[in-house]
Amino acid sequence: MADYTFDYYNVTFPVKYVAHVEISREKALNAFHEAMWLELRTVFDRLSRDADIRSIVLSGAGPRAFTSGLDVKAASENSITNSDIDESSDPSRIATKNRRYIDDFQDCISSIERCEKPVICVMHGYSFGLAIDIGCATDIRICAEGTKFSIKEVDIGMAADIGTLSRLPKIVGNIGWVKEVAYTARIFEPQEALHQGFVSQVHRTKDDAVKAALELAGLIATKSPIGVQGTKELLNYSRDHTVAEGLRYTSVWNSVMLQTEDMAAALLSGIQKRLPRFSKL
Amino acid sequence: MADYTFDYYNVTFPVKYVAHVEISREKALNAFHEAMWLELRTVFDRLSRDADIRSIVLSGAGPRAFTSGLDVKAASENSITNSDIDESSDPSRIATKNRRYIDDFQDCISSIERCEKPVICVMHGYSFGLAIDIGCATDIRICAEGTKFSIKEVDIGMAADIGTLSRLPKIVGNIGWVKEVAYTARIFEPQEALHQGFVSQVHRTKDDAVKAALELAGLIATKSPIGVQGTKELLNYSRDHTVAEGLRYTSVWNSVMLQTEDMAAALLSGIQKRLPRFSKL
Amino acid sequence: MADYTFDYYNVTFPVKYVAHVEISREKALNAFHEAMWLELRTVFDRLSRDADIRSIVLSGAGPRAFTSGLDVKAASENSITNSDIDESSDPSRIATKNRRYIDDFQDCISSIERCEKPVICVMHGYSFGLAIDIGCATDIRICAEGTKFSIKEVDIGMAADIGTLSRLPKIVGNIGWVKEVAYTARIFEPQEALHQGFVSQVHRTKDDAVKAALELAGLIATKSPIGVQGTKELLNYSRDHTVAEGLRYTSVWNSVMLQTEDMAAALLSGIQKRLPRFSKL
Amino acid sequence: MADYTFDYYNVTFPVKYVAHVEISREKALNAFHEAMWLELRTVFDRLSRDADIRSIVLSGAGPRAFTSGLDVKAASENSITNSDIDESSDPSRIATKNRRYIDDFQDCISSIERCEKPVICVMHGYSFGLAIDIGCATDIRICAEGTKFSIKEVDIGMAADIGTLSRLPKIVGNIGWVKEVAYTARIFEPQEALHQGFVSQVHRTKDDAVKAALELAGLIATKSPIGVQGTKELLNYSRDHTVAEGLRYTSVWNSVMLQTEDMAAALLSGIQKRLPRFSKL
Amino acid sequence: MADYTFDYYNVTFPVKYVAHVEISREKALNAFHEAMWLELRTVFDRLSRDADIRSIVLSGAGPRAFTSGLDVKAASENSITNSDIDESSDPSRIATKNRRYIDDFQDCISSIERCEKPVICVMHGYSFGLAIDIGCATDIRICAEGTKFSIKEVDIGMAADIGTLSRLPKIVGNIGWVKEVAYTARIFEPQEALHQGFVSQVHRTKDDAVKAALELAGLIATKSPIGVQGTKELLNYSRDHTVAEGLRYTSVWNSVMLQTEDMAAALLSGIQKRLPRFSKL
Amino acid sequence: MADYTFDYYNVTFPVKYVAHVEISREKALNAFHEAMWLELRTVFDRLSRDADIRSIVLSGAGPRAFTSGLDVKAASENSITNSDIDESSDPSRIATKNRRYIDDFQDCISSIERCEKPVICVMHGYSFGLAIDIGCATDIRICAEGTKFSIKEVDIGMAADIGTLSRLPKIVGNIGWVKEVAYTARIFEPQEALHQGFVSQVHRTKDDAVKAALELAGLIATKSPIGVQGTKELLNYSRDHTVAEGLRYTSVWNSVMLQTEDMAAALLSGIQKRLPRFSKL
Repeated sequence: MADYTFDYYNVTFPVKYVAHVEISREKALNAFHEAMWLELRTVFDRLSRDADIRSIVLSGAGPRAFTSGLDVKAASENSITNSDIDESSDPSRIATKNRRYIDDFQDCISSIERCEKPVICVMHGYSFGLAIDIGCATDIRICAEGTKFSIKEVDIGMAADIGTLSRLPKIVGNIGWVKEVAYTARIFEPQEALHQGFVSQVHRTKDDAVKAALELAGLIATKSPIGVQGTKELLNYSRDHTVAEGLRYTSVWNSVMLQTEDMAAALLSGIQKRLPRFSKL
Repeated sequence: MADYTFDYYNVTFPVKYVAHVEISREKALNAFHEAMWLELRTVFDRLSRDADIRSIVLSGAGPRAFTSGLDVKAASENSITNSDIDESSDPSRIATKNRRYIDDFQDCISSIERCEKPVICVMHGYSFGLAIDIGCATDIRICAEGTKFSIKEVDIGMAADIGTLSRLPKIVGNIGWVKEVAYTARIFEPQEALHQGFVSQVHRTKDDAVKAALELAGLIATKSPIGVQGTKELLNYSRDHTVAEGLRYTSVWNSVMLQTEDMAAALLSGIQKRLPRFSKL
Repeated sequence: MADYTFDYYNVTFPVKYVAHVEISREKALNAFHEAMWLELRTVFDRLSRDADIRSIVLSGAGPRAFTSGLDVKAASENSITNSDIDESSDPSRIATKNRRYIDDFQDCISSIERCEKPVICVMHGYSFGLAIDIGCATDIRICAEGTKFSIKEVDIGMAADIGTLSRLPKIVGNIGWVKEVAYTARIFEPQEALHQGFVSQVHRTKDDAVKAALELAGLIATKSPIGVQGTKELLNYSRDHTVAEGLRYTSVWNSVMLQTEDMAAALLSGIQKRLPRFSKL
Repeated sequence: MADYTFDYYNVTFPVKYVAHVEISREKALNAFHEAMWLELRTVFDRLSRDADIRSIVLSGAGPRAFTSGLDVKAASENSITNSDIDESSDPSRIATKNRRYIDDFQDCISSIERCEKPVICVMHGYSFGLAIDIGCATDIRICAEGTKFSIKEVDIGMAADIGTLSRLPKIVGNIGWVKEVAYTARIFEPQEALHQGFVSQVHRTKDDAVKAALELAGLIATKSPIGVQGTKELLNYSRDHTVAEGLRYTSVWNSVMLQTEDMAAALLSGIQKRLPRFSKL
Repeated sequence: MADYTFDYYNVTFPVKYVAHVEISREKALNAFHEAMWLELRTVFDRLSRDADIRSIVLSGAGPRAFTSGLDVKAASENSITNSDIDESSDPSRIATKNRRYIDDFQDCISSIERCEKPVICVMHGYSFGLAIDIGCATDIRICAEGTKFSIKEVDIGMAADIGTLSRLPKIVGNIGWVKEVAYTARIFEPQEALHQGFVSQVHRTKDDAVKAALELAGLIATKSPIGVQGTKELLNYSRDHTVAEGLRYTSVWNSVMLQTEDMAAALLSGIQKRLPRFSKL
Repeated sequence: MADYTFDYYNVTFPVKYVAHVEISREKALNAFHEAMWLELRTVFDRLSRDADIRSIVLSGAGPRAFTSGLDVKAASENSITNSDIDESSDPSRIATKNRRYIDDFQDCISSIERCEKPVICVMHGYSFGLAIDIGCATDIRICAEGTKFSIKEVDIGMAADIGTLSRLPKIVGNIGWVKEVAYTARIFEPQEALHQGFVSQVHRTKDDAVKAALELAGLIATKSPIGVQGTKELLNYSRDHTVAEGLRYTSVWNSVMLQTEDMAAALLSGIQKRLPRFSKL
């Protein structure tokens, strides 16, 4: 089995075929610095290729925050990836450094979306800024009562740039609402998030929410991985293409996927009234 | 008038300018085999070009199911369209057969969307798998209490490939919900379908739902066909394009459609306080 | 300061950095003729470039209508922009005149969307036809009780062509509903508009709605203009592009916007617990 | 074997796996009327699915013309497909008939591009108007000396609408030249066509050109059909998409096509220094 | 007739239906400052709508240059359009000014492409930087011997931003060559420009080139304006869309354009062997 | 300075700011196996971020081949990246392994295109299969006499999948030629490659070609890196987007890049008639 020991994430396997990834920097409200998002990509790239894993739950350690967002102090000291452009006051060279930095930061968060297995996000407590970017990159979001959501970036003088503005309007169906919360950075509550479709479920406590997420992940993990992973791929592809292009891509995809042994296994188990067993994927 | 006698569909004209298409394989829960979807395309291509028709209701015969989906047994014996590739165990040749088969199957269901007249779908009873693909290709969905909806494909080891995954995310505004029901294949009920916007109305019985659909279709049929059919075309076009492209296409479209006699007819009838009469289209 | 005296619009500045644009043709229910939409473009192009303005409220004068839509009588006499094609009965030449006319009409209404500052629309009373086109071009819509909404175009024998059909399906998340109200031209009420996400708030009176809009605009105007205007740009861009393209455009955009003094100003004011002051934009 | 007896086409099989389709209305310079393009679609749809065919040559009968284009007289009497819109002077209803007619006409010619097997077009003599539309829908064009090419449509008061304007700029790499010949309808000669890349070869006589086309088609037919047909699909897909999308589609396509027996057959024949034998496709 | 008196352009009508626009700042090698490109847009917007004009020739006054490009000195003093952002050292506010400035500059040059009538560009002498941007926005380019072409921008420390990099790769078919001349800013000569397809003709002198351009423009002006202007629109649309989208747009466009009187006029003149007469457009 | 010691590449710095990457597996005709393309990505990702590098030459070691393509024997043993899917005969699971493998292989070759600095490819000797994929990912191709080019994939029973089919039609302007060489796998020679625009220069020997490439790279390296790297980015972006989108992206890009010190440096050096000095990028 692949190695799942990390500095900033607890990765456990509480249910068969299900990974639970916990952001683990509780003392700092799970705020992110560069090493953390670089490691996040490693976690999800590894899970994506791990044939023992069929679905994933992502949550934050401790009672206070899923994540309070970017660790601004640490971010201002970032120096890992762009070291050799001249110390410079040239705005164009600074922009080049910034662009390379943002591109890589986005790519780390997009690893969640790129991960071939469904990801369920459990949000609780402070869920500001980057928390929304991360939530938008997952497939399904559920939360605990008391969660404080905010697209916080405008309050620090910037537009959100790690995915919220690109993904959120394609997740919920009320763009006026998206604009209002993005322009004002106001905090919104679980009931509003549920009403707008940003989250699918609200639970009394974080523990209840994690439990519900694991149950849902466990249910998904009993299904054919060929069926489920194809569904994720085709839904994400279709979001970004015309219906005609979605249909064509689907047809090419399924031209081979319909040859899978999973179909026979699923049909047989239906007749025998037992859970099907599927090979790894 | 065109011939509307079919093997698997009852086509009637209960309201002026309105066609009612009923899937008619009640004994098998209206499950589909290949001849049925091929004929469905003939029905809708014909209605699309029939200048006497302005709107269409689609429903399923019998009390138990709109359609229970694919007739898996019949599908496994499909042999009509791809007969001359070698009997082969070459996965690439099987994939080619599959792709041609899916492409054609998709095209048959897409005939509903391609049909130039609005189509209202009445769903009831079992509405599994292909039922959702078909519903997504219509313009407006209404249902009866007791309908059992399910994106069932994952349960037989595959991803839905006849349109649901390409169209559903562009019909409703809660992608987390779409993913959940698609990954789990769980049954959802009319109230949930209404809340998510998959259906627009829920009626007590199937008969009530058909009646309501015919009334809505009848209302649409009193409107200018130039106006209504242009609206369908422009809404479907805009779904798949940028706003700028949608505006431009609209402008070219209406450059001639504004020359229609329907505008004078509509204005005159407004002054005379009677229903306008419009030529065929 | 730029000149804000217009024939058909009252432009006032009731709150710091906020412009209030009032459609002012009360005696005709604020119905639009060509000179009005040409002037509308001038208003919004000017506000877009005016560094003293950070957000905008758009409403209609008088108690009876936001706007009853196109002034059909005036429109039938349009003669300003296309004067030199031959008086002609050639449908292709008439189409060319029509296309040029629609293109320019659309461009005038799109000036609201193109305006770099957020625009909040207050709708009340009759809000028919062009009212919906205009509302769809703003960022956030709120309304008063008693508003009568209708995509009225089908009732005059045409498809809506000034933006509703291109934008509305990307504003709300229930396409079945959009199709139903567009095919039937039926009036819908504030509660339905709220439920579908077309408006964000419903207030008891128009005055209450204007007051609420000015408060929201005022709140937005206290935020970093670099942050807010970037957010508008990136949300509108992302609506029309894939997630991958949205992310890339965002990264290039923010490569310079992160160099803004607004970030330091915002952080400092957070520490000093006072409102930040931002330079003009 | 499928039936290849047609009214307007001679279909022969002069080389193994190669079909030769000859437009056969010599007395009228192979000019097209509606029944001819409807039948053309039948021919190419059948060849596309015929597993005995691997490549196709398309030419025109007689010494004088590949095709002189549309049979204008016959076209003005077209009455097959759109019979039931009211005899009408309404420009919008006429436009609807025209649009349905053009859509179907385009679809017939696009059947050549949609055909899964490579098509080589031999042009000679008069090759006007529709001749260019048809040539553009094939994969490779060769011609005889003395061919007269012309995008003739402007000379009859219209823009070419059956494919030339959509495809030609993506076939050759000199858009200024495309515009010049399209705006002026001037005749161009084989050497100019060769220089611009519209044709790949010029032969002394039509017979020489047909012979060369059959040789090229015969060569292609000795290659793996999985390799060749995949190459056609991927090149046409890539033309219409970004590089990133082309790469992704290619990867999904080849995920199964690399499992073909053709690869082993090709490698083995390389070792044994003989022609490989491939199963039908 | 519209007024064609301008500060920086001589507009004459040397051939029936043909306008000749001459850049007229000979003493400064026709170098551009802001007032000039703003006026250029006025010129082409007016010609686009002028029903007496069917084709246009664009050239530069004097013997030495089509245009030497941007008047760098004047550009550095630009102050017309963006006056009210604070005098500021904030890179983000400077970027906002720059973006608004470039957007407007691009829009002025794009007015040539947007102009509904074909534009033929005659290049001679120094044709640096902006000269290439302008040439790329026209339909057909011809030049005189001795022309010095250069994508000069890299030599002043920037990437070309007024259209060359967006349009040139879609005009010629050798991207390696485009990259080489863009990366190095090296001067290329008429024969190389002809070989690569950037220009269509090379004439001995500028006067010969202008004469040839007027002849070509005159020929185009004898053709149906419905046919020619539709051809320009459809070719430009197709460049930016898939073949399937190009076909559909073409079909909608021609659904009305085939109703034109020009077709009867063209056919009749063919029978009567005289030049057809077409109404204004 | 970054470490440039690699197993399969000699990386040297023969000219200021220029890197020379030599594929170094001469004994095997520079054929590629998996470790080689994984390392290739490391090389180009590192050069892309190395501020001391402004342009790159890529060539193959030894006299006989740029690269003979894929090392088929080694490829058939690939086992690095996809180890944990079950040993399986399920075509869908094999397809999943294949897809992951191709995706990653493509990404390695795309690192050349993604590299922010221009890359000049020198081809000689056998340049088969993957050689063309690699050449297409570079900016400019030059070659030596005697080079043997071939899109060889069809001869081993597959369609090219590492970039040739997606990129080549956007590099050269003769799609008929692309299709012919791709369908037949025939070898083509330097003069034909030059004529079609696949290569820009042909030199007598490989050494001459490398020398010419280094001179061109050296020339590019004297130019403003802000100008050159922006040009590469904008040309590649424009290839994949509409002109309107290309213009907008350009405008946002240059809104900051025009603030660079390079512009002052370039202007000053022009006045002082010496080579400008630019900071690292």
